[in-house]
Amino acid sequence: MAKEIPYKIYLSENEIPRQWYNVRADMKKKPAPLIDPRTMKPITLEAMSEVFCEELARQELDDTTPYIDIPEPLIDFYKMYRPAPLVRAYCLEKQLDTPAHIYYKFEGNNTSGSHKLNSAIAQAYYAKQQGLAGVTTETGAGQWGTALSMACSYFGLDCKVFMVKVSYEQKPFRREVMRTYGANVTPSPSTTTAVGRKILEEHPGTTGSLGCAISEAVEAAGASGGSYRYVLGSVLNQVLLHQTIIGIETKTALDKYGIKPDIIIGCAGGGSNLGGLISPFMGEKLRGEADYRIIAVEPASCPSLTRGRYIYDYCDTGRICPMAKMYTLGSGFIPSSSHSGGLRYHGMSTVLSELYDQGLMEARSVEQTAVFAAAQQFARIEGILPAPESAHAIKAAIDEAMICKQTGEQKTIVFGLTGTGYFDMVAYQKFNDGLMGDYIPTDAELDAAFTNFPPQP
Amino acid sequence: MAKEIPYKIYLSENEIPRQWYNVRADMKKKPAPLIDPRTMKPITLEAMSEVFCEELARQELDDTTPYIDIPEPLIDFYKMYRPAPLVRAYCLEKQLDTPAHIYYKFEGNNTSGSHKLNSAIAQAYYAKQQGLAGVTTETGAGQWGTALSMACSYFGLDCKVFMVKVSYEQKPFRREVMRTYGANVTPSPSTTTAVGRKILEEHPGTTGSLGCAISEAVEAAGASGGSYRYVLGSVLNQVLLHQTIIGIETKTALDKYGIKPDIIIGCAGGGSNLGGLISPFMGEKLRGEADYRIIAVEPASCPSLTRGRYIYDYCDTGRICPMAKMYTLGSGFIPSSSHSGGLRYHGMSTVLSELYDQGLMEARSVEQTAVFAAAQQFARIEGILPAPESAHAIKAAIDEAMICKQTGEQKTIVFGLTGTGYFDMVAYQKFNDGLMGDYIPTDAELDAAFTNFPPQP
Repeated sequence: MAKEIPYKIYLSENEIPRQWYNVRADMKKKPAPLIDPRTMKPITLEAMSEVFCEELARQELDDTTPYIDIPEPLIDFYKMYRPAPLVRAYCLEKQLDTPAHIYYKFEGNNTSGSHKLNSAIAQAYYAKQQGLAGVTTETGAGQWGTALSMACSYFGLDCKVFMVKVSYEQKPFRREVMRTYGANVTPSPSTTTAVGRKILEEHPGTTGSLGCAISEAVEAAGASGGSYRYVLGSVLNQVLLHQTIIGIETKTALDKYGIKPDIIIGCAGGGSNLGGLISPFMGEKLRGEADYRIIAVEPASCPSLTRGRYIYDYCDTGRICPMAKMYTLGSGFIPSSSHSGGLRYHGMSTVLSELYDQGLMEARSVEQTAVFAAAQQFARIEGILPAPESAHAIKAAIDEAMICKQTGEQKTIVFGLTGTGYFDMVAYQKFNDGLMGDYIPTDAELDAAFTNFPPQP
Repeated sequence: MAKEIPYKIYLSENEIPRQWYNVRADMKKKPAPLIDPRTMKPITLEAMSEVFCEELARQELDDTTPYIDIPEPLIDFYKMYRPAPLVRAYCLEKQLDTPAHIYYKFEGNNTSGSHKLNSAIAQAYYAKQQGLAGVTTETGAGQWGTALSMACSYFGLDCKVFMVKVSYEQKPFRREVMRTYGANVTPSPSTTTAVGRKILEEHPGTTGSLGCAISEAVEAAGASGGSYRYVLGSVLNQVLLHQTIIGIETKTALDKYGIKPDIIIGCAGGGSNLGGLISPFMGEKLRGEADYRIIAVEPASCPSLTRGRYIYDYCDTGRICPMAKMYTLGSGFIPSSSHSGGLRYHGMSTVLSELYDQGLMEARSVEQTAVFAAAQQFARIEGILPAPESAHAIKAAIDEAMICKQTGEQKTIVFGLTGTGYFDMVAYQKFNDGLMGDYIPTDAELDAAFTNFPPQP
């Protein structure tokens, strides 16, 4: 007889994965290499190490080693909030009256409120190992900045966060969490960097952008005389690697109960959560051991996979970072106002872009009012108030469960619930008041953004 | 050999307690009965049932039944966020360099952000069982209102929350969480009740008080023609009873690893968390089976146990609720501004008051800047950003651990971490900016408040 499945499958602490899984090792056709815009050639470890910690630069470029050991001090930190529960959404299933079985991997049970902490602590660890004084980064919605502040505080590293000015002003609570963890938070653009001053001169009233904040953070690290490095919370291969702890735990929990998922769903901004969740499953798929439907869900307002082009593009609007081949809307694309700040990135992880291009995963875009309706439904019946980003995956999971209801199929759906929405109540208020709209770029707007693509290598 | 103790001790779902424990049953000298101010005699079940659900009124008055079954639908709901982890504070111990072992029972892993949900769901369940249309309540800081909104949403009950006006305006995010769960939130005082209109007439600019909100909520329930009842999140015996799930789980987890605590610490406002945490341990103490030091920690700004009087007093400033014999500062006492809204109640649970009076537990008061310093220290090393209320217990736990460091004793300290501080960032900001002060009432201020005591029965 099958074991009864609890509401929450918790692994024990000694089941925390000891290795990350590098899905690139199992890809026959690898993601295209990052290009150094100065040479227009694949970037070298040396060039990467000017910006990133050496060990992280190595992880970034390594597309052959399948398993990479997680250092022991990281395991100790992970024990404070991991393993994360895999939850059976019994109440939601009952409410939907669907034969589908729905599971979600919940990454919100830590103070940063999201999965971002998984990579933040790894990046802080390697920075500490290298003897650095601190790290710099940018943050938009603030989840990454919060996670990095926590990680740096734990390892006694200085943490300089450039926070997009509009968020700095509109999300003072996120800012205060970072400050409580000892981070130095600067609204961007600022007068502390050359690029910031230039932007302020050209656009005196600007409220900032992620691209500008990235440029300031990179400049600040570079100006430190080598004692700081820049760190990033998504998009990069190293980040996806660290986030595979999500997917490995998920697979271990499912295997324990003999559950084989049919559909795996994740929201996709830069791709860190989705990549981390699906990697071990994608590995089986690549090795021909199993098959799964894998669905990336992105906002209709920033549809890089579903409406972007697969092409070399800059990773930042300041054009000082390496170029990556990815699905992109153009580094000059400015998504219309949306409340899922974590999904407002113009490009997509090169790994996910390549997997999508090879037809190994699906993608769909959803509109934000539908996303908030799903978020509210989920909050009321499953008790967890989701981050708007996470709610993209909820929306798709509900849609798939309703298809099962029509067809009568008992499919098993697993989705990633990346975090909580406690700092997103301005958006919920807009939804509660019926004042939320949908923003879908026109073809003409996208075509205009596409004219920004750089010359191809 | 002793089992290695993990960072987090999780019980399995089938170890969720099936019964609450009623500590009054083991008290030789019972808490003094509630007095009906209309008759000046012990309140009857009938009179109680006019205000509260019948089953809850029964629990309120029952001081002889030691164990009370938890209804099955509640167990199902508890499974969504319980058992709550008992965490070994390894990192904090190491940082303090103390021989003490520190554990905390963490109740913040649910969207309401605190232990309040344990009783909210029970009260909503009994209201539903009784066939009511909904419930009314008041909320100050908003944790109770949030918890009740979630509970009512789950059982399909209407939920009317009177929220102290100053909080309604200053804590819009709490308000929006409640609205997301479908609650009707009214700033108090309001024009929707006679008592609200009277107060607005007498004090046109008032920003409200908990006492006034209670009075409005009770009036609104009374005016419903019997289809609504009033519910309360602390102080009452029924609430302490429901919260014993905290203590029972804690004891089960400790027993599993053969751990015997020396000191048990909890913050104390109305007493629901502290009472729930300590009940099973106090039971052993009352039955002569074990001994523990039990410490209630209250804010220096509202020191009911440490500086109040043990006397019959009104439970609300509107003086429409029953009178209780309790440690109290007087129902007219207005605590100076403090950021631990959940601890700003003039009185203390009758059960805890009686236990304290019998010398079975200790009490101490702490100042808020010291509390926030402890909160920040804890957040940085243990990763959880605590609610200011919870941080009172952290402060006392750290103090006790530091005494162990001096004496070299390896004591085992257990404290209740009641919730998270995500909606308290205004207070953290004040602390981060060095703008937080301490507020300790003078003896003259307390003496003035004491003149408010009603005639004794």
